Amino acid sequence: MCQLLGMNCNTPTDIVFSFEGFRRRGGLTDEHSDGWGIAFFEGEGCRLFLDYLPSSSSPVADLVRAYPIKSKNVIAHIRKATQGEINLTNTHPFGRELWGQNWIFAHNGNLTHIPAPVSSRFMPIGSTDSEQAFCWLMNELAQRFASCPPAEVLYATLQELSAQLAAGGTFNYLLSNGKTLFAHCSTKLHFLIRQAPFTRAHLCDTDMAVDFSLETSPNDRVAMIATEPLTDNEQWYALQNGDLLMFVEGQIAYPIAYKPTPRTNDNAASNTPAVC
Amino acid sequence: MCQLLGMNCNTPTDIVFSFEGFRRRGGLTDEHSDGWGIAFFEGEGCRLFLDYLPSSSSPVADLVRAYPIKSKNVIAHIRKATQGEINLTNTHPFGRELWGQNWIFAHNGNLTHIPAPVSSRFMPIGSTDSEQAFCWLMNELAQRFASCPPAEVLYATLQELSAQLAAGGTFNYLLSNGKTLFAHCSTKLHFLIRQAPFTRAHLCDTDMAVDFSLETSPNDRVAMIATEPLTDNEQWYALQNGDLLMFVEGQIAYPIAYKPTPRTNDNAASNTPAVC
Repeated sequence: MCQLLGMNCNTPTDIVFSFEGFRRRGGLTDEHSDGWGIAFFEGEGCRLFLDYLPSSSSPVADLVRAYPIKSKNVIAHIRKATQGEINLTNTHPFGRELWGQNWIFAHNGNLTHIPAPVSSRFMPIGSTDSEQAFCWLMNELAQRFASCPPAEVLYATLQELSAQLAAGGTFNYLLSNGKTLFAHCSTKLHFLIRQAPFTRAHLCDTDMAVDFSLETSPNDRVAMIATEPLTDNEQWYALQNGDLLMFVEGQIAYPIAYKPTPRTNDNAASNTPAVC
Repeated sequence: MCQLLGMNCNTPTDIVFSFEGFRRRGGLTDEHSDGWGIAFFEGEGCRLFLDYLPSSSSPVADLVRAYPIKSKNVIAHIRKATQGEINLTNTHPFGRELWGQNWIFAHNGNLTHIPAPVSSRFMPIGSTDSEQAFCWLMNELAQRFASCPPAEVLYATLQELSAQLAAGGTFNYLLSNGKTLFAHCSTKLHFLIRQAPFTRAHLCDTDMAVDFSLETSPNDRVAMIATEPLTDNEQWYALQNGDLLMFVEGQIAYPIAYKPTPRTNDNAASNTPAVC
């Protein structure tokens, strides 16, 4: 299975600490070594770094560590290929322009059926089910709205479209236009929100810790989303099958009054692994 | 003015040597220090590295030097801003997907008039005339063809569309879909084709040389395109106002029987500087 990592914040933040744990799962602490990618939004702009080398040994991943890019929205992905060969066209995240905005998408799962697209405006370049699903989503959005709709409309539409795609297989995904970040869960996705009072966090994948109280200001708020929790001393929450969370400025904007499910060892074990 | 660098080859080649000279023009040997970018096609896939730091001092440019990516089509750009502030959305090259292909574009020049777009399918994310012109081109192509037309039709169409845009100002550009590379000249663009017998080349911007006879095989063919020649001991050719060259596999596919104009010190001096 692949793994996803997302970040949505109210102030530009670097993801170096979390990425350091995450990248190790690409060939070192786990088997996701069929390429990786990371997208950083900076304002409306976006930088997308891709590599088909394992993230644990990729020179591009070394750059991401050495050059801390501050961003309010980040999506990263490490790949264990099931559909589509290992090359750059099949490496997530995928990006497209819609309504004069960058849209970035990464998927963890396997879709055996994707509905026919409503248009050929957005077409896959590679051969993954994931990019095909992303193009299907973009075509649907473009068909329905001439410009970006209000948040609640966009949320409701994505909820409907995600359910259609999830009917065809496993569909955990992250999607962002640089302002909001959507996280959809079929089988496995976790999140936490770091805010004051900030504490020390310790990575699961290597003996590395950071005291966020020394790195942050009191109003900072950072939502982290990951397939598997990245730290072993913070409370992570498990998204449930069918959940679609819309993060804005480091907090959950939709669903309103969402009740998160604390992750326990029990629910960690009961989740069905996804492939992608 | 900005500067452009392009490469089109018949075998995947790294651009490290040429880029080493080119990047120095971004703040060291010249004034193009308002960001830079480089796109590498690898098969149908594309990696686009962008930075708003000067290319001479950018950590991303250091990565490009340290991690030689082999590519058959490369487009790079260093920026001296005239329209649009210095940020990531205004950093060339720009990319879009059309017909299931990556299309990459970079511009040197200044357009004071751009015709109204035929659709809103492709919209600029930033505020440059360059991205607006690129979106105009993409909208026109998408409107006219449901899939990528034959090479001669694509060439003729781009010739017509480029002339329309060039009527609104200075329009030197590079455009590629990973198979072909188009180079259009309003005021200043040079090229050369390296092929057997390969010789030693020496950069203009730093005392660095490479003996290509040691780095190549006899069938290799590499077209280099640059605003200003990159080497001081090779014969470069100057494109003329209105020229559109289509490079495929390291040679000029269109116009058929193109007669290149050797660059002399005279025509170097007579070219009107362009801004972007």
